[in-house]
Amino acid sequence: MVPRDVLLCYDEEGCRRFLEKIWGLSPTYVCVIGSTETAKIPGISAAGKNPELTDYTPAADVELLLYGECRCIEGVPVTPEGIPTPALITLSAVQLAEMPVIVVDGGAAVKPHAPYVDVGGRPGGNIREGRGVDRPETVFERARTFGKHLARISDYIVVGESIPGGTTTALGLLTAMGYDAIGKVSSSMPSNPHELKARVVSEGLKAAGKEPGAFRGDPLGAASVLGDPMMVAFAGLVAGAAPIVPVLMAGGTQMAAVLAILKELAPDALGNVAIGTTRWIVEDRSSDIVGLVSQIARVPVLAAGLSFKASRHWGLRVYEEGAVKEGVGAGGAVIAAIAKLKGRVGCSDVFRKVEENYERILRMR
Amino acid sequence: MVPRDVLLCYDEEGCRRFLEKIWGLSPTYVCVIGSTETAKIPGISAAGKNPELTDYTPAADVELLLYGECRCIEGVPVTPEGIPTPALITLSAVQLAEMPVIVVDGGAAVKPHAPYVDVGGRPGGNIREGRGVDRPETVFERARTFGKHLARISDYIVVGESIPGGTTTALGLLTAMGYDAIGKVSSSMPSNPHELKARVVSEGLKAAGKEPGAFRGDPLGAASVLGDPMMVAFAGLVAGAAPIVPVLMAGGTQMAAVLAILKELAPDALGNVAIGTTRWIVEDRSSDIVGLVSQIARVPVLAAGLSFKASRHWGLRVYEEGAVKEGVGAGGAVIAAIAKLKGRVGCSDVFRKVEENYERILRMR
Repeated sequence: MVPRDVLLCYDEEGCRRFLEKIWGLSPTYVCVIGSTETAKIPGISAAGKNPELTDYTPAADVELLLYGECRCIEGVPVTPEGIPTPALITLSAVQLAEMPVIVVDGGAAVKPHAPYVDVGGRPGGNIREGRGVDRPETVFERARTFGKHLARISDYIVVGESIPGGTTTALGLLTAMGYDAIGKVSSSMPSNPHELKARVVSEGLKAAGKEPGAFRGDPLGAASVLGDPMMVAFAGLVAGAAPIVPVLMAGGTQMAAVLAILKELAPDALGNVAIGTTRWIVEDRSSDIVGLVSQIARVPVLAAGLSFKASRHWGLRVYEEGAVKEGVGAGGAVIAAIAKLKGRVGCSDVFRKVEENYERILRMR
Repeated sequence: MVPRDVLLCYDEEGCRRFLEKIWGLSPTYVCVIGSTETAKIPGISAAGKNPELTDYTPAADVELLLYGECRCIEGVPVTPEGIPTPALITLSAVQLAEMPVIVVDGGAAVKPHAPYVDVGGRPGGNIREGRGVDRPETVFERARTFGKHLARISDYIVVGESIPGGTTTALGLLTAMGYDAIGKVSSSMPSNPHELKARVVSEGLKAAGKEPGAFRGDPLGAASVLGDPMMVAFAGLVAGAAPIVPVLMAGGTQMAAVLAILKELAPDALGNVAIGTTRWIVEDRSSDIVGLVSQIARVPVLAAGLSFKASRHWGLRVYEEGAVKEGVGAGGAVIAAIAKLKGRVGCSDVFRKVEENYERILRMR
């Protein structure tokens, strides 16, 4: 029941049990979006052609999932170098396994031209100024309510995310809560700007008049100063759903921030979740997802063994060099597709579908 | 398979087939909300203590369903006489049959303090001035997309609505599309203000420079001048869902307006829907739901045989005198509860639960 294309990266026994639970089941894929002013600090995020365009990326990503094309921008979201969004991977997995897609807006500045669930969220501030999430209690509670109702009609739930600059705000929340996260969060850039991220977080703490660890045990306090709206809505959803059905938390090192919130506000949820990410994250030498997760809780970490080495396109081949790595629940969506189809599809099928989708979109330009 | 408490009111054979399809299945209950300036014309709507308060009623209704109490107002929505919202019936059915609840905002002026699906809708105008729905194409399309994805994780879907003044806008849309609806729509008041409604519609047509029937075959054109945002979102949802799973359209004479939209934009959907309403609607001598529906399509009409005669409370007993009658999908939700539990609960169980919920809320004041 462990397909060749799924890597068991932390808590191997838990990984096996989780795969058994979801094997053959039909997942509901949920994407939680959000945006922050933090993402516009130059050098922080590659999730957009330039910092100002990062506001459009979450909306464009979910439009791609729902319609097969973006509506609020032309083409698809790209990095400043032109590398396309990982939503192409998620789209391909969703298509192969025919997964329904539900969008939850944790607080995005640009709203999708598509249906989405409003949980009362607003865009996040610039954590460098100590401004994180408005009304985190409201967002958490409403997302929890939605998660509860969605779980009752789902075999299980896969939750992905799209928020530019999300690893910096993850570092912010984790640091504020007293975890040792400096140098451990991932980046969508091949060269991880750890020093810049740490400086932003430390300036943010200073602006708020707080020490690292000042928000130990108070995740929503930490989020209000150094977090982002996606992580709060994501955690709320999981808190509502995981008591009812398994939840695959689809993402990279940002999932550690979600776990840190859950550990305080819904510790029981941790027993029915796993993290699903990509090989590019778990093999990344500039970050340490297992080192982060293991500080918080023994939660299984699985990875999709994707490879774009054989791609005809530079924009996909560079994923092998550490560009992008993860996002929009790409890794978890691939694992969910493999599990739903009981291993009858694998990463090479996803890869072929990604090539096909990318070529279709290049032709549309 | 036809329980004693469900009345077959139109297309008896279709009613039986529909009941067979949903028997024992777990419904997803969706409530579509919206508001209009039309509802504030004095004498049009009793869905609020006074015309200005009607803006709060849809949000308060869905808060009641999700939380068992309202958040944006104290107590529950009441008519000017103090008669409580039919959402009490829906809540009771939802509780008895443990149905998940999803809220879709077609365009409400007051947003629920709760999670809801945004489909790009805005509050409706005053149809007396020929102002109906903004961007009906957008609302229809996004609701359709959401309905498609929701259907893929639902056994079947029950859709209810809450929009004050909705029978007047239903009359508006139907008249604009050339149907004979004058004197046939229902009212939440015991004495149906047909003359006022007809005058509002005729003034609206005049303001728009149109004759009755000018929008034959063009439902979204009709909605933009004389309709409301709920009916457009409701029709979009059904258009997306009904090709995948059965849909019980839970409502009174407003459902005729939804059918009229569907007939033009998604005629195939009509084969997989039924209307579920209350005995108070089908026995109402001041309206004619079957006379409306039969002009549009042969769609089964079922009714829940609710009776509040034995209530300890005046506010519920007056339902028997023609107050309120229907709303928030009350009748359809009761039918869905009966069908899910295969007749092990009936209208008397719902009645007892309504008394219990009403007494709990009276105590909260």
